[in-house]
Amino acid sequence: MPWMAVLRNPDKTAHMSNILENPVLVDVIRHPAVESVHRGRACIVTVTGEVIEAWGDVEAAVYPRSCIKPIQALPFLESGAADAIGASPEQIALACASHSAEAVHLNELVSWLEILGLPMDALACGPHVPNDPAAAADLVRAGIKPTRLHNNCSGKHLAMLSTALHLGEEPGGYETFDHPVQKRARERISELADTDLTNQPVGTDGCNIPTVAMPLTSLARAFARFGTDPGDATARIRAAMAAHPVLIGGTERFDTKITKALGNTVVIKTGAEAVHAAAIPSLGLGIALKIDDGAGRAAEVAIAALLHYLKVIDETTWAALQPVAAPSMYNTAGKAVGQIKTSPNWLPNAG
Amino acid sequence: MPWMAVLRNPDKTAHMSNILENPVLVDVIRHPAVESVHRGRACIVTVTGEVIEAWGDVEAAVYPRSCIKPIQALPFLESGAADAIGASPEQIALACASHSAEAVHLNELVSWLEILGLPMDALACGPHVPNDPAAAADLVRAGIKPTRLHNNCSGKHLAMLSTALHLGEEPGGYETFDHPVQKRARERISELADTDLTNQPVGTDGCNIPTVAMPLTSLARAFARFGTDPGDATARIRAAMAAHPVLIGGTERFDTKITKALGNTVVIKTGAEAVHAAAIPSLGLGIALKIDDGAGRAAEVAIAALLHYLKVIDETTWAALQPVAAPSMYNTAGKAVGQIKTSPNWLPNAG
Repeated sequence: MPWMAVLRNPDKTAHMSNILENPVLVDVIRHPAVESVHRGRACIVTVTGEVIEAWGDVEAAVYPRSCIKPIQALPFLESGAADAIGASPEQIALACASHSAEAVHLNELVSWLEILGLPMDALACGPHVPNDPAAAADLVRAGIKPTRLHNNCSGKHLAMLSTALHLGEEPGGYETFDHPVQKRARERISELADTDLTNQPVGTDGCNIPTVAMPLTSLARAFARFGTDPGDATARIRAAMAAHPVLIGGTERFDTKITKALGNTVVIKTGAEAVHAAAIPSLGLGIALKIDDGAGRAAEVAIAALLHYLKVIDETTWAALQPVAAPSMYNTAGKAVGQIKTSPNWLPNAG
Repeated sequence: MPWMAVLRNPDKTAHMSNILENPVLVDVIRHPAVESVHRGRACIVTVTGEVIEAWGDVEAAVYPRSCIKPIQALPFLESGAADAIGASPEQIALACASHSAEAVHLNELVSWLEILGLPMDALACGPHVPNDPAAAADLVRAGIKPTRLHNNCSGKHLAMLSTALHLGEEPGGYETFDHPVQKRARERISELADTDLTNQPVGTDGCNIPTVAMPLTSLARAFARFGTDPGDATARIRAAMAAHPVLIGGTERFDTKITKALGNTVVIKTGAEAVHAAAIPSLGLGIALKIDDGAGRAAEVAIAALLHYLKVIDETTWAALQPVAAPSMYNTAGKAVGQIKTSPNWLPNAG
């Protein structure tokens, strides 16, 4: 358990992955040459944990970051908190979201906070500028500083607060590792991943809650099981995400566009530093990937290619999705100068 | 010459580098673990082209992108164009800049365009939002759309237009490969790099001018020679960049902070997709690096580490530069959750 040494000595860090094994998944082309490359690891895993196909060091751990939100949202429904506040499918989708803080998100989030009767600073996440450039400009024009509700994770935080209040727990400190809110989330993640998370590195996420590392195969397995779990809570979350693709991301976001195109045939979720995961319920599969260098532009192209490889994206849809699946790059004068696409040495017929 | 095949077939792309050889230069730590890594190649080269030290596949080519601006600016001075319009050191610094479009930049750029008596659309670069967030917000508040002068390369474009006008050349099309403006720039780059650029891949840069690939060692050599060249034009450019560090980048920019700290002991210039180069005149050395995945966050940390390794940055200055040389990462709640720093396997005592 090499992690124990690291955890005992906070001055030491260690690599979670033998990154020397990881292949180039994505090329960044500036015509006529490849200018940059993105290596990574990816795997396709069944509900029983069988690794169907893998590229790179997939047994090594990753921080799942925001990929794990759909599973972190389970206690919100399973505790009865969601029904107690009459949570709508929109709110359930926002509990799983990395949202862009557009008006469509903020309207729901503001009313949710009012329902809870808590002040804004009950949220443990900090403020940040909306991911959506138009929403960010709207704030500037209105002379309004971003609030904690503008944090892309604010829906998750409202769900966690809702659960704590419903169960009579002290809401203060709900973001800390030992609070029951985090403990319940970890337990559900551990169960669906069928992985003991006890000795894994624990980082602090951008929104201030713990992010517990897990093997990439475990993340994929958790998604495989989340996609096929017969429980009422998982079904309601899957349905809410599929019904409200704009709420899980935003107008111009990758997960939103994929979900709009594929509906309930996938559950897809991005995370910071280029983790990305998806469930394909009809196949009983989960996929997860991590780009070594943390570039989201590559994670998007890679997970789209994997969905195409698994024929979850048909050829007509694939053609329509090219602007996000293999985006051309335009310079400031509007000229197409390059493209981001899967490496021909990886998935030669799928990317 | 493997490039010839690529250039003959525009549907084909090829890797410029055998990236499998390139080591991890920079780690991105989310405590307590390394979450992401950045590989790359770097070299330290003398004025005669001797490679003093190298990491990774440094003979392979890179698009130099904006790194090359100080050298591209030479014909502006050498043609007499700069003196003909009475160019100030501020304008010379802007000719070499990737500026953040703050007021301090725009004021100079607007008056320069007026001196030329050309309309805004004489600039071949397109508009983009200022790199500086405060400058971008100011534009939104004022209800002004970014113009071509806000493009981070607009100073270079004004210098190129100034040169064409001074020499009686048609300014229209100055951004095209065969225009005398681009030809002169290529010749000076080729001379200082002592490298034949004829058969190298030619990409189109973000600002719409050609970017001609060259071996990374050639880029480093060009900087070594630029830093020590006894000519009047090189001396004036070096002095202008050192005297106006804010003008070559911007208030919050890496190159600006390094130049403020080191003055005329270095000439440092960033380029898109994580190329970075520097000259150290006192040592007669040039350094150049390219992060494989194009991440600027890693290029900055890596080139700072190389300057420290070469003792161009002393220990007191190194301590003061830590916020840019090995930046801590804070989450939205203001908590220090990680750090970007050189890999302990690369430059163990310098990064």
